[in-house]
Amino acid sequence: MSDPTAAILVIGNEILSGRTQDTNSNTLARFLAPLGITLSEIRVVADDQPEIVAALNALRARYTYVFTTGGIGPTHDDITADAVAAAFGSKIEFHPDAMALLAARYAERGEDFNAMRQRMARVPQGASLIKNPVSVAPGFQLANVFVLAGVPSVLAAMLDDLSSRLTRGAVMHAITVTAPVAEGDIAAALAAIQSDHPAIAIGSYPYYRPEGYGVQLVARGVDPAAVEIAAAAIEALLRQVGAQPSRL
Amino acid sequence: MSDPTAAILVIGNEILSGRTQDTNSNTLARFLAPLGITLSEIRVVADDQPEIVAALNALRARYTYVFTTGGIGPTHDDITADAVAAAFGSKIEFHPDAMALLAARYAERGEDFNAMRQRMARVPQGASLIKNPVSVAPGFQLANVFVLAGVPSVLAAMLDDLSSRLTRGAVMHAITVTAPVAEGDIAAALAAIQSDHPAIAIGSYPYYRPEGYGVQLVARGVDPAAVEIAAAAIEALLRQVGAQPSRL
Repeated sequence: MSDPTAAILVIGNEILSGRTQDTNSNTLARFLAPLGITLSEIRVVADDQPEIVAALNALRARYTYVFTTGGIGPTHDDITADAVAAAFGSKIEFHPDAMALLAARYAERGEDFNAMRQRMARVPQGASLIKNPVSVAPGFQLANVFVLAGVPSVLAAMLDDLSSRLTRGAVMHAITVTAPVAEGDIAAALAAIQSDHPAIAIGSYPYYRPEGYGVQLVARGVDPAAVEIAAAAIEALLRQVGAQPSRL
Repeated sequence: MSDPTAAILVIGNEILSGRTQDTNSNTLARFLAPLGITLSEIRVVADDQPEIVAALNALRARYTYVFTTGGIGPTHDDITADAVAAAFGSKIEFHPDAMALLAARYAERGEDFNAMRQRMARVPQGASLIKNPVSVAPGFQLANVFVLAGVPSVLAAMLDDLSSRLTRGAVMHAITVTAPVAEGDIAAALAAIQSDHPAIAIGSYPYYRPEGYGVQLVARGVDPAAVEIAAAAIEALLRQVGAQPSRL
């Protein structure tokens, strides 16, 4: 069995307009990595049902899991649940547990559990709820699709309820070595190290800072011993060109 | 003629692994908005030629412009130029102007203009160069595809050379009104305002902060007067429920 893969579908005009910097994708990426689930693709689309449906159907057919973020609140621009139902050709209905959770929450706060708030209890038929310990309104899972909130603190809090639902794969180990050298001075030798270690993915990320330039070299792979050997080879290369490597 | 559209294709294992928070998409989104170019989609894919080719061909067929970021340095993991050439079925070749620029730069710094650094002068046949005032190695344009650097400061510096190449559209104007109210208390009235102003896109973005919760309401449209009228309607609604609106 091959390792599980994942895609993220960010639903949000506010990301595309530049108003909001997406951080949910990074939160999800950091959640998936230690589970050994390979994040293979991220897409951001507008709050537009045909766009969401097309992207979701492409991604859920291709990857083990799809995580959506955004569009599950009470306002008119929250269209994710309907779009997911449309993508699956499912009916959408009020989930009794979600209705009960939300009714209790608004009663407790003395707030009106009005029709728009009740929209947050609508999920596609057959979906199971995902707990929201921050603001109660749940996410939901339908087959291999996990529908999560867009507010970063709420999305992060929903992840607790996901771990037990996901099949784990081989965890990638990574060592990052940094040194104040020009990428181009080590590129050929680095390519040779990559060739010598085909099971390790070696990435090279230059930086330019006021105090000077340098490079971060990342060795990633499933076998920690093999990652260590590749990292040691990178460090030896850096010393060879007169630089002092350090690990991040 | 309809307004120009755009997509961003981020090429980067480091984004998918969670190691790096992508900020280039937001930089590009904020660059495109005042030009009246609608950013319709963002995709992030791995450093993998077939993935890059498939995504690029899907996006360049659909949108007026595609902007790629990442993968144009001197190291073995910089495969964007080859992938773009493959997507277009074009040959890749050393661009004489890029060779001259890079040769001069490395001569000036007393650094070796070696074979790996020369890779940064390879562009698909027919491409025009995009200036890089930070680190010289150019980006390039081929048809409606703009290939930009992944280092954020370099990407930002390359944008200066793009403005004159892009057809402008109608600029979206936006007013953001914020108030310490619960989204659900205004959702129905907000939906009515949206219905009354179909040319304006009204977005509702709740927040939860230590000092309390609230909502940011954004009215966006091409006609500033119509945006102002919708924003005033939103402010009136907020006052009606006893909240004091302010503009961001």
